[in-house]
This record gives sequence, C-alpha cells and structure tokens, in this order.
Amino acid sequence: MIEYKRLDETKAFPKLAALPVPKLGELLTAERIAACDIPSGGGLTYNWAATPVDAAVLACLGELAEEQGLLEKYKLLAEGEVMNTGEGRMVLHHLARGRLGKAVLRDDRDLRAFYEGEREKAAGFARDVHSGKIVSSTGEPFTTVVQIGIGGSDLGPRALYLALERWAIAEGRAMMGACFISNVDPDDGEDLLSKIDLGTSLFVLVSKSGVTQETLANECLVRDRLEAAGLEPAKHMVAVTSETSPLAGNESFLESFYIDDFIGGRYSSSSAVGGVILSLAFGPDAFAEFLAGAHEADRLAQEKDISHNAALLDAMIGLYERNVLGMGGTAVLPYSEALSRFPAHLQQLDMESNGKRVDREGVPVGYSTGPVVFGEPGTNGQHSFFQLLHQGTDPVPLQFIGFLDGQTGGDIEVEGSTSRAKLNANLAAQIVAFARGKKDEDKNKEFPGGRPSTLIRGARLDPRALGALLAHYENKVMFQGFAWNVNSFDQEGVQLGKLLAKKVLAGAKGDPALAAYAAMLGLPAAE
Amino acid sequence: MIEYKRLDETKAFPKLAALPVPKLGELLTAERIAACDIPSGGGLTYNWAATPVDAAVLACLGELAEEQGLLEKYKLLAEGEVMNTGEGRMVLHHLARGRLGKAVLRDDRDLRAFYEGEREKAAGFARDVHSGKIVSSTGEPFTTVVQIGIGGSDLGPRALYLALERWAIAEGRAMMGACFISNVDPDDGEDLLSKIDLGTSLFVLVSKSGVTQETLANECLVRDRLEAAGLEPAKHMVAVTSETSPLAGNESFLESFYIDDFIGGRYSSSSAVGGVILSLAFGPDAFAEFLAGAHEADRLAQEKDISHNAALLDAMIGLYERNVLGMGGTAVLPYSEALSRFPAHLQQLDMESNGKRVDREGVPVGYSTGPVVFGEPGTNGQHSFFQLLHQGTDPVPLQFIGFLDGQTGGDIEVEGSTSRAKLNANLAAQIVAFARGKKDEDKNKEFPGGRPSTLIRGARLDPRALGALLAHYENKVMFQGFAWNVNSFDQEGVQLGKLLAKKVLAGAKGDPALAAYAAMLGLPAAE
Repeated sequence: MIEYKRLDETKAFPKLAALPVPKLGELLTAERIAACDIPSGGGLTYNWAATPVDAAVLACLGELAEEQGLLEKYKLLAEGEVMNTGEGRMVLHHLARGRLGKAVLRDDRDLRAFYEGEREKAAGFARDVHSGKIVSSTGEPFTTVVQIGIGGSDLGPRALYLALERWAIAEGRAMMGACFISNVDPDDGEDLLSKIDLGTSLFVLVSKSGVTQETLANECLVRDRLEAAGLEPAKHMVAVTSETSPLAGNESFLESFYIDDFIGGRYSSSSAVGGVILSLAFGPDAFAEFLAGAHEADRLAQEKDISHNAALLDAMIGLYERNVLGMGGTAVLPYSEALSRFPAHLQQLDMESNGKRVDREGVPVGYSTGPVVFGEPGTNGQHSFFQLLHQGTDPVPLQFIGFLDGQTGGDIEVEGSTSRAKLNANLAAQIVAFARGKKDEDKNKEFPGGRPSTLIRGARLDPRALGALLAHYENKVMFQGFAWNVNSFDQEGVQLGKLLAKKVLAGAKGDPALAAYAAMLGLPAAE
Repeated sequence: MIEYKRLDETKAFPKLAALPVPKLGELLTAERIAACDIPSGGGLTYNWAATPVDAAVLACLGELAEEQGLLEKYKLLAEGEVMNTGEGRMVLHHLARGRLGKAVLRDDRDLRAFYEGEREKAAGFARDVHSGKIVSSTGEPFTTVVQIGIGGSDLGPRALYLALERWAIAEGRAMMGACFISNVDPDDGEDLLSKIDLGTSLFVLVSKSGVTQETLANECLVRDRLEAAGLEPAKHMVAVTSETSPLAGNESFLESFYIDDFIGGRYSSSSAVGGVILSLAFGPDAFAEFLAGAHEADRLAQEKDISHNAALLDAMIGLYERNVLGMGGTAVLPYSEALSRFPAHLQQLDMESNGKRVDREGVPVGYSTGPVVFGEPGTNGQHSFFQLLHQGTDPVPLQFIGFLDGQTGGDIEVEGSTSRAKLNANLAAQIVAFARGKKDEDKNKEFPGGRPSTLIRGARLDPRALGALLAHYENKVMFQGFAWNVNSFDQEGVQLGKLLAKKVLAGAKGDPALAAYAAMLGLPAAE
C-alpha cells in the first residue's frame, strides 16, 4: 500500500538536511562533469555536475525518492489512479504519447486508443488541408492557422510552434504559418486580425470546458470579423474541446477534436490542444516525432536508479536546493532563440502545478513548495538579469539548455569564431562562473560562486528533442509534487478571481472596495 | 554633508521592523482606495491601497527615506555627482529628457544640450527618411527599421516599440515597422533577415562601447547578407555609440548618433538608444511626447512628502515587503497586451541595478537587496502562474498596470460586457482577491489573502503615459538602490562570464572543467 505523507514526515528529509553541504566550487572537476551525464530522451543529455550534490547527498535524495514512492506513484498515475484527488480525476497526459503500463479504461473505453484516435483524426485533417481537399469559404487553400486559447491552450502550443518554426523552414517541412490570440484584451485579437489574410486563415478554438470567458470572447471577435469580411465562419474554424462541452459536435465548426478531463491544460501540449495546430503547421509526421521524443523521456523517467533517471534527479536536486539550501526561484535559460517562450510555458507548468500551500489532505504544509520560475534565452539574459544571479544576495538555481547545432544552418565567422561557437562558449563559461566564482580584492568585483546549475543539451532542436524536453519538465514537476505531497494537477487558486470578476461585471453590489477599484478602471457600478 | 550608510545602520529600519504588521485584508476599504491615489506623471495614477501599509508604517517609511537622504541623493545624481562610484561615472539618463536642477557640464560641454542635440539630429534624420530625402542603396524609401543590440540596447527599445505599435497604427502615426536582432544565436538574425525586404530595411547598430561581442557578430551577419543581396551596407546602417568607441565617425555608417558613459544601458531608452528607432517608427513628435511624460515623472519624484511621491513610495513599500515582511520576488502584471515585453525590460532594469551583495564601499550587506522580477500580461497570467501567487507558500508582491481604454479602439460585446470590461473587471477582481483572500472549509479552496499589490493606471497607453511609466520604474529602482546603499549603476557581475567565454574560444587551456563543458557543447579544445 502506497503511503502519502508530507516531506517533513519522512525519515530521509531530516537526514538530508543534516548532511554537510558540499562545496560546489571544489566539486567541479572534468571527471565529475563526465560522470554526471544521464540520457533524458530524444537524444538529449542531462548533466548535473554543477550542483552541490556529492555521493552522500545523492544517496539521501535516492532514499527520499524511494520513501516517498515517487516511481510507484508515477506508475499509478500512468495506469489511471485518481491522482488529481480534489477534482476526482485521473491524470493521463502521458497516454497521449504512448503507454507506460497496463491499459487505462473508462466505461470500457481504452483511453490511449481515444487519444490516439484524435491524433489520427487531426493528422488526417491536416493532410486534407495541406492537399487542398479542405479549403476556405472562398475556395482558397488555407495558409495560416490561428489558435484561440489561453493558459495551457496557448503557452505550450505557442512555445512549441516557435521552437520548431525555423527548423521546419530549414527542413522544408513548414506547411502553414501559425499565430495565436489569447488575451481578452481586445487589442490582442484586433491587432492580429488586421495583420493576417482572413480569407486563407483557419482558426483553432481551444477550450476544454467550452466556457472559458476569454476564449469565447475572442471566438466571437473572430467570427464577427470573418463575417464582416464576407466569409463563412463555420468554414474557417475547428474546435478542440471535451465531448461534454457546449462546443462539442457543434455545426458552427468545420471539425471538432476531443480531449477529456484527464488531461490538464498545462499538460495538454501532447494532446489535440497542441496536436491540431502543430500538425497543421509542420505536418502530422513532425507531431508524431515530437510525441515519440516525449514518450522516450516518459519511459526513462521510470528508471529505478536515481542516478540514471534525469527527471527524478532533477526534481530531487531542485527540492534539495529549495528545502534544504533555502534557495528561491528557478531560472530557465535556453541558449537557443527558438526556445524564447519555452520558459513562459514552464512558468505555467511548474508554478500552477506546485504553487500549493496545502497537502493532498488539505493540511497546510510547513515548508516551501513550488518556486517562482522565470527565464529568457541566452546570451540575452547575460546582458540583463544575470547580474543578480551572479552577485545578488539570494542565489537562484539555474537550468541551462543548449544545442550543438543551430536550426537554420546559417552562421558567420567573426574574429576567429562562429556565432554558434560564441553562443556555446558563453554557455560553458556561465556554468563554470556560477559554480566557481572568483576572488577579488575589490569586493564589488568578487563572485561568491557556489551557485548551482544543470544543463540539458542536444545535437539540434528538432521535434523529437523538443518532445523529450517538454516531457522531462512535466515529469520533474510531477515528481516534485509527489515529494512535497501536494496535488500538482488542480488549480483552485484561479477560482476566486473568476468569481470576483463576474461580481464586478454585475456591478460589484454590496462590495464597496471591489466597486471602488471597478470605478477607477472605468467599469460602471450597479444601479 | 550627505551620508551613505547601509539599511541596517539606520535608526528608522529597526523601528520599521518593530511596528505591528497591518492586516491588509482589514485595511482595504473604499475610503482607503480613494485616499491612496498619487499622480505619477503622464496622466498615470499610482494606487497603493492594497499594501500592508498603515499610517504608522507610512510615517516610518518616510523617516527612513529621509534618513537615507533619498531625495538629496536623487538631486545630486541629477546634477552630476559621481553616483556610479565603482566606475567613477555620473548617472545622467534623466538629462536626456529634461533638466531637474542646475546644468551638468563636462569639459565645458553642457550635457543636456549634448543629449538634446543628438535627439534633434535623430529627429531630423527620421524626417529625412520619412520624406524620402534619405533612401536605400536601391533608391527605394526605407520601410523597416531593424535594431541590432543586446541588453539595454534591445529590451527597453523593443518593449517600448511593442507598447506603441498598435497606438501608432490606430492614430495614423505609424511611419515604419520595426524589428530587432539581439541574440548571438545565429538562428535569431538568420531567421529575421530571411523574412524582411533587405532592400528597404534600415539597420540601427547600437553599442555604446562599440565592442559588444554579440552585436558586432550580428553586424557582420547583416552586412554579409546585405552584400550578398547586392546592396551597399554603408547605405543601410546607422550607428548609436559613444564618441570614443571604434564605431564613432565611421564611414561604413550612413549616420552616427552619440551617447556617453553617463547613460547606462538599462537606463538608455530615453537617449539615442531608444530615440533613433522610435523616431523612425513613430515620428520624432511621438518620441518627444514620450520624453515629456518621462520628465513629468522625474519631476514628481522630487516631491518631498512621501505620500505624494509615487516612485519614492513604491520603492519604500517594496523595501518594506522585502526586508521586513521577507517577501521574495516582484511580479509585474500589465493588463495590456501592448506591454507584453515591458516586464522583461523591468527585469533587466531592476535585477541588473540592484542585484548586488556589497554596498557602495564594497562591504557585503547583511540583508536582501534586489528581488527577482518577472511577469506576463493579464489576463494571460491568471491562467498560468497566478495559482502560485494566490496559494503558493511564499507571497510575492505584485505590481498591476491597467488602462481605461484600449489602443486599437476595436472591441466586441459578448454576454453583456465588452472584452475591455472583462479585462478590467478581472484586474479589479485580482487586486481584491489577493488582498482579502477567502475562507473555506476545504483548505484546498481557501485563499490566505494578505498578498499585497499596487496599481498604476492611465486613460490609455500613449507615448506620454509610456514615458512616465518607464521613468516611474527607473526612479523606483534608483531610490531602492540608495536605500540599500548599493551602486545601482554598475554591473560587475557580467564580467566573469565574458572572461571565461573568451577563454573557451581560445581553447580553455589549463582549465579542465571549463574544457569539459566546452567539449560537450561542441567547441574544439586547444591543441
């Protein structure tokens, strides 16, 4: 029988906290760097040499992972246990990309087959759009796909699209351009709609519940503008939703693709939420490669030995840095312009999953859970917030990502080195600079060092590598949630704001403070 | 004689720390919301009602500001005192938009006149481009301006361009489209250059020192591609640099615009660094309006009474939350899609300025200085990291920004409200939700409340409002730096990485750990 207990109820945690903290600057040798290398799927490798983890800490992290049953819980989750306890739901995003154990059935339906069927439907639809079998209401081929969604229906798919856009062009696999409308700020949608050719644009409306306020407002905006342009909205829009939503089986859509309540928004990129737009943009094969990479990483996350399980180790090192060393935040630093919005996706994935103050039983935890996650691509970040990371008062753990080759193939040699060499030289340099620091008589020029980082690297950012990268972080977040004993799969923290916003729109009656802010922001009070 | 002392050496700080902490949820009344309203320039208003600051805390913040001589230091800075002590430099970005006191001379040159002269030169140049007096090497009018720069030469100008792009289109003031190349990742530049019409593109190369590795590499890439397209690079590129840089007075540029060492990169948006591209994109008058708004905010920051000085109060409230209440991070949350990259600019501005662990004399401080700054536009953030902000274990102070009207003028009414009303209703709701929280028998659905926020609001985001918004934060950061007694104007923390990157490019000789990372990232070792 698997046990659910808080971090501070384990035997391993106080033991971990009592271990001497290794001096990172002294640990970092070439031998260690070579030894701390673990495959993380999709051709990627995870390196944890630049963390303050020695053999004793590693062993204790392994004990803690075992005591908290992280792998068993992962297995239960993958096989359909109700892991989203508050909402009474299974957590099945892994099934969208393969099976990790026995089949998961719901009312006799095999859910892997359901997700796979929707993927195949999206693949067929994309092929028909690409071949010209499906055309716009003017009879023209669709050239642009526009996703309408917010949160998990926007951040993941957007980050993934941007991550592969240059790769697809270079490989001759770019089928359609993609854009996104997410914010309820009407300037977002208005601006985009004024810049694209509506007649050749296909809109993908994504809302699992079918009642997301922002998304439905933007749907109306789009339909209105399509009509104003003399087009037939129903021939320019598909839906991605659940079978029980008001949007399901609706004739105002050209086609509908389904997910269900067992795939949470922030974990939904490998379902139809990401699959429809990515299959249209890059072709169904690219999306299948992406899923294969993600599944590889999922399988590697089942590895029992923590020193060979990249996602598990990454999770436990992060926990050690946060709960034992007291470090705040996590910076995600891809040395790849293509990953410019990947940190924003991880920000949602991590902060919405583990930004929780009560455990699975609703008891407040007495320790820090999920960190603030932020980041920008390098080398840009070096010229921005890296100052604080190097010399600020509060150390922040760093997660570097890098690739040996670029996506476009273009480059130039200046002063004896290519731009790619400069990019990766800076990446190597930063890892060492953060870990080792530098003494200086002028204390303003001194670097304390001892600032930990990890590195995920690959040959080139392609769909398979991207899938593995995404899954690595999903699994890391899940393992941390298990270790903290929080529910990483609900988001009750978004409800109060929704309620109060409705109250404002209804006039904020009986709530003078709310009415005061509403009035300041130009909203009418109730009569 | 003005005194420089650490925060923990003041009399007011222990007094502040000893005050009872006000209960935010109980403070928040309609009367307080109306009373806590201060003009912050450019038509903007700063409201601090939703912070845990009562009369006693406010009075003590005022005492601390006075004891640390924040206004006197601001005056000294504005009048040319060497405030960037480590580098022995004055700090004069305020002069780029007006004068706050007596003239600042350097070798008999009036520096306000110098900056203003460069602004006028940029204005004239922009007018000549717009009128077609200056044309491309093919004789065509320039339609696109591309800034090549990194850090402060990129983040601020890029955030400001995006902030005004929709406004300019709606007002018929859009003169040229603008793009940016910043990252040394060659995929960044290659991708952009493949998407624009080189024949009608004008490049603005921005590097104060003239030796920024990334920027010079991207300059070579652009010149190479221009030549390959049969164009004359010298007729497609202008420089923004210092008079002493290798780029100055160089015939390979169509024109050069100057700044000097007294305007730091992250504070340079109101100098030629922002002025050339913004004058080209929106016309010189729009840039002048932006500067006028910034100057208004600068003057308001001289106000002696802290309860009427928005930047000073914002700074001191932030300090109270960080150093007394122990809160980490700062989230910047504009409810405006146009401000999508404004948080990234503030991230540099704040973290590079105050991410320091030693005081002006090089003595390590014993308290937290600059926080991690991050943010995304609302309502998007609500569907992402707001979960952690509401229910995470570690409260994060919030800075909301909102506008009564949009930029495009377009909107749609759905279910009885416009999208703008929905946007602002959510903003009002969030402030109250964070401050007040909500009890619930199900602790997973309980909101602790007591989570502070401030609100800057305006009628509409136009150049004047944007200038004031930028200057508000510059002044806030400066005041906090003075209060912590750190040098907010240097960035020694970026040096070690630069040094080690050069070492990697030279083969990482004698440094096996560095060489190991270099080899992993595909870089050749020295022979």
